[in-house]
Amino acid sequence: MPSFIPIDSDSDFSIHNIPFGVFSQQGGEKRCATRIGDTVVDLRQLARKGAFDGVEGFSASWFEQTTLNDFASQPLSTRRAVRLHIQDLFTPDTNVSLEGKKDLLNTALFDANTVDLHLPVRVGDYTDFCASEYHTTNAGRLMKVPGPPLPPAWNYLPIGYHGRASSVVVSGTPITRPRGMRPPAPSSNSGPSFGPTASLDMEYEMAAIVGGKGNALGETLGTGDVMENIFGLAIMNDWSAREIQGFEMTPLGPFNGKNFGTTVSPWIVTLDALLPFKTGLPPREGIPEMAKYLQEDDDQPTFDIDLDMSITASGEEKPTHVMRSNLKHLAYSFGQMLAHHTVSGCPMQAGDMLGSGTISGPEPNSLACLLEITERGSKPFKTSGGQERVWLQDGDRVDMTAVAKRTVDGENANVGFGNCSGVIKPAKA
Amino acid sequence: MPSFIPIDSDSDFSIHNIPFGVFSQQGGEKRCATRIGDTVVDLRQLARKGAFDGVEGFSASWFEQTTLNDFASQPLSTRRAVRLHIQDLFTPDTNVSLEGKKDLLNTALFDANTVDLHLPVRVGDYTDFCASEYHTTNAGRLMKVPGPPLPPAWNYLPIGYHGRASSVVVSGTPITRPRGMRPPAPSSNSGPSFGPTASLDMEYEMAAIVGGKGNALGETLGTGDVMENIFGLAIMNDWSAREIQGFEMTPLGPFNGKNFGTTVSPWIVTLDALLPFKTGLPPREGIPEMAKYLQEDDDQPTFDIDLDMSITASGEEKPTHVMRSNLKHLAYSFGQMLAHHTVSGCPMQAGDMLGSGTISGPEPNSLACLLEITERGSKPFKTSGGQERVWLQDGDRVDMTAVAKRTVDGENANVGFGNCSGVIKPAKA
Repeated sequence: MPSFIPIDSDSDFSIHNIPFGVFSQQGGEKRCATRIGDTVVDLRQLARKGAFDGVEGFSASWFEQTTLNDFASQPLSTRRAVRLHIQDLFTPDTNVSLEGKKDLLNTALFDANTVDLHLPVRVGDYTDFCASEYHTTNAGRLMKVPGPPLPPAWNYLPIGYHGRASSVVVSGTPITRPRGMRPPAPSSNSGPSFGPTASLDMEYEMAAIVGGKGNALGETLGTGDVMENIFGLAIMNDWSAREIQGFEMTPLGPFNGKNFGTTVSPWIVTLDALLPFKTGLPPREGIPEMAKYLQEDDDQPTFDIDLDMSITASGEEKPTHVMRSNLKHLAYSFGQMLAHHTVSGCPMQAGDMLGSGTISGPEPNSLACLLEITERGSKPFKTSGGQERVWLQDGDRVDMTAVAKRTVDGENANVGFGNCSGVIKPAKA
Repeated sequence: MPSFIPIDSDSDFSIHNIPFGVFSQQGGEKRCATRIGDTVVDLRQLARKGAFDGVEGFSASWFEQTTLNDFASQPLSTRRAVRLHIQDLFTPDTNVSLEGKKDLLNTALFDANTVDLHLPVRVGDYTDFCASEYHTTNAGRLMKVPGPPLPPAWNYLPIGYHGRASSVVVSGTPITRPRGMRPPAPSSNSGPSFGPTASLDMEYEMAAIVGGKGNALGETLGTGDVMENIFGLAIMNDWSAREIQGFEMTPLGPFNGKNFGTTVSPWIVTLDALLPFKTGLPPREGIPEMAKYLQEDDDQPTFDIDLDMSITASGEEKPTHVMRSNLKHLAYSFGQMLAHHTVSGCPMQAGDMLGSGTISGPEPNSLACLLEITERGSKPFKTSGGQERVWLQDGDRVDMTAVAKRTVDGENANVGFGNCSGVIKPAKA
């Protein structure tokens, strides 16, 4: 299934991907899109020109919106049919192939390097889970939360908290160093003080974007509803101000230490595209069986996706690689998060976002935030340009990438996420 | 300023109130409205018929929406002008009085007992603070959170957590008893179990609804922005499943123990209407000065509003009065909550909701949730029909009312909130 659109051999956006996003050109209107190689495809234009005629139940109105919420809220069968149809449109010798249709292609294809990308969905509610046992253990120890490092509920359910939807932004949006109340130093006799965070951190997470019709108040979804009710995944950076978070979070959880910005990558990669990369959860050993509502019928309910993170320190050009991890290290699947979140009767709506929590793995180089990498600031690392870092400094840029790699008939069939990037701006005076 | 619309002498909705809400009639379209006495006034109809002509900057499109978000997002000066204009429309002998304009009044006025009321705003983000020192102390002790009853940050900032916007519902919406993971009994050797909550509670709170243009990512609002950026207040019932909450909340805060439903009263009472009831915060004694961003220039930054709560037990007709409290018992003002929430750079948008936290006061009868009233289930109370209660049972109805009372020239000038009501439905099988 090679496309007639040129695709670099290492592109995240093989014809097997077909993610969904929103772009604009030179300040123009926002338009729904997909991406193939380095080409952004204007789905609104294709729909207007009838390229989706014959796709059962298709409505051109979905791609007339400035976000993907309307399309995401369609049933899986429809979303799947549209995505497969897009593959056919850009593959030679299919009965709907657009190959050679120069007039249409000239108005619908854009160089990815010349467009602006936007938040792909209007996020109704954003929830952040904490599904890596490695991260949870490390963070519990390092944040010195009372009690044992693993919370009492850890073995029984995916713990999580409600995050702030209004500060979810797309990759590339600068993040202003937040100010807040910082606790006194342990040895000090003074009280807490107000000022810019001195322990600014990032957390490498993935976000599941809710799709389908969701559930009404008082109704529930199960682990088996994940294909129907998750539209797709994106990379997510859960920026964190550690000392602000540490001071405020007992007993109601993280608040201003997190709500100053959450960055997501611009392309939502569908679960359909990730099916070839399905894999099992880590074994649960020596702990009680999970409650029925959290059990997975699917023995491969998660995905094998390689995750990378680097920091380009202020004043440097060469990134410093700081993490290599994998989504499969998470102890809970997105299906389990969906089931747990709704078992209370809490409604899910298309566009809602479920963060996975920091995806730290078992290896020293798979720690996915500076809290863990530098042992809460006590173990500095050297940047590629020779600077020391324990936390993020103004002007530092964080880049996160994710890709599931395979070949089909010797050709690149990678399914990747592009880049989730953000630069730190100085605190407000 | 008596209206030509009849108003009962004890009505919450004197001509001095003029709250904003959304109604429909017999399954028809949702329309923006105000209420005077027992009369619901269709603001869409008034706008269509030119009744707001001459109000500077007025746009009839605001009241063509099915929520008040567009109107709420206008500047205070505009919101204020519209509200004062409505008072003039329904007062005799003003130059815009509608008295005697039967054709218009016949199409714009409805009996409050014959209409359906809806969620007045589309809630973008919902945050729940915890601003009563009485409640925080009692809940800390009774929920057995680690450490002292008052959290470490309590004296320095209004603690809060992000809540779930998708489960915010209007008064009258039934609440399904949630299911979830319940911890084992302290004396038991077994593990946690899944099932319906056995400790269903309500919390009497008030919610501030954000108005104005809010703030962009990285920008802040101050305590002095409260009039401009709070559209008004409503009563809020933060339903809680105590053992689910207790099991899940360390360290990330309340989640499924709260997200199954949050009920708000249908009429948003503007801060302008509450100005005659301004009062001071409780004195802060023996604790350090607050950080500058949290200081109030206004020495009367809160409001003297009487709050009442009753439970009508299943099978009974007569309500059992369980609480009398007052908004002025809160240790932090809504202006302080607004300033704290945004000091990180977190964006506020019109329609966002800031819950006050349970408004328990110093008196035994001013405890605003069953956790406190029954000492976490250990001290039952008798209902008016002679039943025993420690937590809410299926079929129980909770009613919350709030009113600020005064007279002007011997006439009722009450500013009240109506009723915030909800009935418990049995758990899903």
